[in-house]
Amino acid sequence: MGMKNNMNPVTAEEWGQAVASSEFDYDYADEREELTIERIQRMLELRKFKELKDELEHNMYPVDLADILEEVNEKQLVLIFRLLVKEEAAETFAYMNSDLREVLINALTDSELEEVMEEMYLDDTVDVLEEMPANVVDRLLMATDEEKRVQINLLLQYPEDSAGSVMNVDYIALSRDMTVEEAILKIRQVGLNRETIYTCYVTEKKKLIGVVDIKDLLTTGESRMVEEIMDTNMLYAHTTDDQEDAARTIMKYGLIALPIVDHEMCMVGIVTVDDAMLVLQEEETEDISRMAGVNPGDDSYFGTTVFEHVKSRLPWLLFLMLSATVTQMIMNSYEAALALMPQIAGFVPMLTGTGGNCGSQSSTLVIRGLAVGEIEFGDLFKVIWKEVRVAVCISLILATVNGVRIMLMGQGDALMAFTIGVTMACTVVIAKVVGCTLPLAAKKVGLDPAIMATPLISTLVDISTISVYFAIVSYVFALA
Amino acid sequence: MGMKNNMNPVTAEEWGQAVASSEFDYDYADEREELTIERIQRMLELRKFKELKDELEHNMYPVDLADILEEVNEKQLVLIFRLLVKEEAAETFAYMNSDLREVLINALTDSELEEVMEEMYLDDTVDVLEEMPANVVDRLLMATDEEKRVQINLLLQYPEDSAGSVMNVDYIALSRDMTVEEAILKIRQVGLNRETIYTCYVTEKKKLIGVVDIKDLLTTGESRMVEEIMDTNMLYAHTTDDQEDAARTIMKYGLIALPIVDHEMCMVGIVTVDDAMLVLQEEETEDISRMAGVNPGDDSYFGTTVFEHVKSRLPWLLFLMLSATVTQMIMNSYEAALALMPQIAGFVPMLTGTGGNCGSQSSTLVIRGLAVGEIEFGDLFKVIWKEVRVAVCISLILATVNGVRIMLMGQGDALMAFTIGVTMACTVVIAKVVGCTLPLAAKKVGLDPAIMATPLISTLVDISTISVYFAIVSYVFALA
Repeated sequence: MGMKNNMNPVTAEEWGQAVASSEFDYDYADEREELTIERIQRMLELRKFKELKDELEHNMYPVDLADILEEVNEKQLVLIFRLLVKEEAAETFAYMNSDLREVLINALTDSELEEVMEEMYLDDTVDVLEEMPANVVDRLLMATDEEKRVQINLLLQYPEDSAGSVMNVDYIALSRDMTVEEAILKIRQVGLNRETIYTCYVTEKKKLIGVVDIKDLLTTGESRMVEEIMDTNMLYAHTTDDQEDAARTIMKYGLIALPIVDHEMCMVGIVTVDDAMLVLQEEETEDISRMAGVNPGDDSYFGTTVFEHVKSRLPWLLFLMLSATVTQMIMNSYEAALALMPQIAGFVPMLTGTGGNCGSQSSTLVIRGLAVGEIEFGDLFKVIWKEVRVAVCISLILATVNGVRIMLMGQGDALMAFTIGVTMACTVVIAKVVGCTLPLAAKKVGLDPAIMATPLISTLVDISTISVYFAIVSYVFALA
Repeated sequence: MGMKNNMNPVTAEEWGQAVASSEFDYDYADEREELTIERIQRMLELRKFKELKDELEHNMYPVDLADILEEVNEKQLVLIFRLLVKEEAAETFAYMNSDLREVLINALTDSELEEVMEEMYLDDTVDVLEEMPANVVDRLLMATDEEKRVQINLLLQYPEDSAGSVMNVDYIALSRDMTVEEAILKIRQVGLNRETIYTCYVTEKKKLIGVVDIKDLLTTGESRMVEEIMDTNMLYAHTTDDQEDAARTIMKYGLIALPIVDHEMCMVGIVTVDDAMLVLQEEETEDISRMAGVNPGDDSYFGTTVFEHVKSRLPWLLFLMLSATVTQMIMNSYEAALALMPQIAGFVPMLTGTGGNCGSQSSTLVIRGLAVGEIEFGDLFKVIWKEVRVAVCISLILATVNGVRIMLMGQGDALMAFTIGVTMACTVVIAKVVGCTLPLAAKKVGLDPAIMATPLISTLVDISTISVYFAIVSYVFALA
């Protein structure tokens, strides 16, 4: 399904005679087509700057433009950026990757840079600064006015991944003794440059004492007092709380923003729902990477260099490869048995594969349950009991199917089918129990449960599978 | 870190003399402590219904209450539910699991049920109905007024996982020829029961022609026309679009709500950001389950019965176990070599394990890149080129480390170390290329890339690893 087509900015064709221009020039609207990179480059070649400027303002989203700018050359990048109105320029700048930002910072004049810095939201500014080399940071801070610089320095001090590091310091503060009319007037006056005005915060000597939704302000009598309609049973987070916890609170309670307070309960900022979504996506990506034995990086797949990819993947591969020495030592101790009956080696990949898959099913479900808050360490025995029952059912079915297969394909007699069946059953039960226990144990001791995923579980399950298998097979066939 | 403590509703102790009661009784506020299940049950025993009712209204969130109600007995459940004010009752009902809902539906009178149905948002009502048995649905629909029943039937027709199935039909529609003052007046009049009023939609003969943020309405002159300030370059989705695409659009552009239109571009509803977050979480859980070879179900881990767990995990386990027959056949064809040199079997788990881990690293990163929209099928060769370079670096390091280990541990001579090294290098490169290619291929042919994850990749890589290994080892040691 072509989402691009469905969700992109409205094009004139689709709307027919309906309005598509913000200047109410309905006929003109028909001429407007999607602003692709090809059209932008054509307009630059033809030096249609005025037309391009107009289209960039009315027919383009900053997040999409940031994508497009990755594809143009440096000269075009600077040219296009200079055509943007300043709010769009600042927003586009915030969405760019750090390479593009550096190019721009080197190309722009001091006063142009000042304008961008002035328009950017403070949380975006901090994100930009954190990724820049020191000399660029100096130049950017020089382009920032004194008051903002103080705020930036404050924000830069919050630990990475804390709620303080993703918060926005722009929000609307009301006082309890305002009337609703006064509150609305205040929103009208200061609301223009606020990232969100949807929820307002009632403070008293800077302390957060209540929240008021703009809906409540608009749908109540103008002469009522703010303190009458404010909700004092509010949610908040501390600056030092984990950003993921703050984001999960926003999600759980369906909030638009979560107020952030310091340790004296003074209001210092808000985390908005759009930032919460980004935080959750980042955390999911980190979890998924860890679950595959990759140390998560800050950058995207293509943004990460080959060397960094190697660095992030190598440690677990090395560790797991060396751990597999244990399996090898076990197998080597059965060398005599293998020499007598070499076909028993052929079952090894199937047994370890099935064990690994069973273990990874359990560990993945538990890791996910922990991440979304459904499962806690206290559920340990409830989880194990469930997994054991599941394992027993699955092991009976797998052992039977596999036994039938062995006999049909002539890979062994009934005794072999039975031996493999017993090993299979033990493997499945062990794998499921190990798979569900380790993530919970990791959580308990403060490790990320995501590391207890497939790679590690497979290696551990391999060891137990091979021990069980060779012990059973050499006993049954008297090979030892 | 105790998130519960940090994020929970403010307790009186924390605020000291600050207000914590919505009735401005500041001294009274000091007595208020967190409303735990124990306190609720104590109050029920002491028959302090009035006090409990008051606390439930002012000191409890519906989403938390729904969790608590899972722990009480049926009698208490009904008793507590009857103490709730009707808005809270409806919202709590929407958060409950389907078992609790059925108990309540059977216990409530028709008129009580009617009140709940009246207060519930339409999208929640539809969710509730979709999970109920037919006789309960009938009773619920009887408790619903005619107009709402028509809307419900309409919503029930949208395909599962479509944007239409998660949309809310309550939104504020303005017309282009209203003044800002008239628009605000309209919001004040109808806004009370709207789930979101933050963005208003400008329609003309039901067709969506623009959007206006409430911030824009409040911060502009009252006599301006809506059409002057509306944004016509708006984003939207169709009712039949995938709900995940709609949710990703909301996330990408930082929207509070996305308008949903039918195929005549008529406005039919909105998807709000809180629902978008839930959709994304559900989709992530589905992806992660699929990546572990579990067919995703609708329910949570504990909400799924043992039988359903078996059903969702068995198909992939069976398929992969039977696929492993191929590895077995390959190994059996080298039976003579194994009998002569049984120690070569000992390297098998390490080689297949490392291959599986390498493949799963690549496939996981690519699957995630596809899910968040960073990687597309067109990037195929770019991805392969990156993975090949990463694989070459990794394989050299792993082969060297492993060679040194083999010689140090006396598990083989230099020739064996060399043979294993060459196999290891081939395995890593094959695993990385297979791992990154298959998810992209799946996407191309319209399959979910998530099925091309660890379990399947491991099995495929096992086959190639074992083929390469036995071919090399029997050539080098002249075993064939």
